[in-house]
Amino acid sequence: MLADDSNNDEKCRTRRLEITDKNKGFIELLRQLTVCDSVSDKEFEDRFRELACEGDDHVICVVEENETGKIIATGSVFIEKKFIRKCGKVGHIEDVVVDANARGMQLGKKIIEFLTEHARSMGCYKVILDCSAENRVFYEKCGFKEKEIQMVKYFP
Amino acid sequence: MLADDSNNDEKCRTRRLEITDKNKGFIELLRQLTVCDSVSDKEFEDRFRELACEGDDHVICVVEENETGKIIATGSVFIEKKFIRKCGKVGHIEDVVVDANARGMQLGKKIIEFLTEHARSMGCYKVILDCSAENRVFYEKCGFKEKEIQMVKYFP
Repeated sequence: MLADDSNNDEKCRTRRLEITDKNKGFIELLRQLTVCDSVSDKEFEDRFRELACEGDDHVICVVEENETGKIIATGSVFIEKKFIRKCGKVGHIEDVVVDANARGMQLGKKIIEFLTEHARSMGCYKVILDCSAENRVFYEKCGFKEKEIQMVKYFP
Repeated sequence: MLADDSNNDEKCRTRRLEITDKNKGFIELLRQLTVCDSVSDKEFEDRFRELACEGDDHVICVVEENETGKIIATGSVFIEKKFIRKCGKVGHIEDVVVDANARGMQLGKKIIEFLTEHARSMGCYKVILDCSAENRVFYEKCGFKEKEIQMVKYFP
């Protein structure tokens, strides 16, 4: 993991998701990313506990703004265990979003660094993510390279 | 899951990976996909048991040829739990490969159907995968559509 001092500064704190973060705007933030309907407290807590059971294999990172106590950026990474690459592991980054009012503070980079460093510390040989073509340059600045194409099938 | 009769015919049987499949050419098959160094029996069994702990959240599908008892196709799917989409779930398909000597038997399609159906049965709202541009047409025939681009960062 990153050293504590690189995760924190005067303005904000980068840390793992906590069960109280639903009251700090976490769901509203995700709504800026995609469809994210209202989630009841129970639904949130149930999902939080399910993910907690996965321990370090599924980590959600958030940035909390010190002044307001609001969650202003988030992203997740989960660790896939494979047989290839000598039973290697791969980190999958998902659901990265920065609050529209908090752009320009390098929070996206902070999230990606936190998640990437977690994957590395878990022994992954690579970390991957899917993004729109317009976000490619941002991820290139984070040290990623374009590789394949993503295919999707939605269920009715 | 698919009905049993659609998973089996005179020539081969589609089923989940079993711990004895290391002796049926499973690792050699993966080697046709990418770097897959030798894996000791213990390494294989340890990884097999780790994945077994994930239960239906991580399934590896294989096609066994009846005549030879060899594994001639494989693919995996794991279920990611999210907060978006009303605490929705997404299936991630990985490591799909068909033995070079068994092409033209629609085994790739059989594997994708098995994994896709598993994701659907687990309540996923979509299933995704990354592939090379040259495999796009195959996945389109399986009902997938191109969506985003995959970015990767390898660790030294």
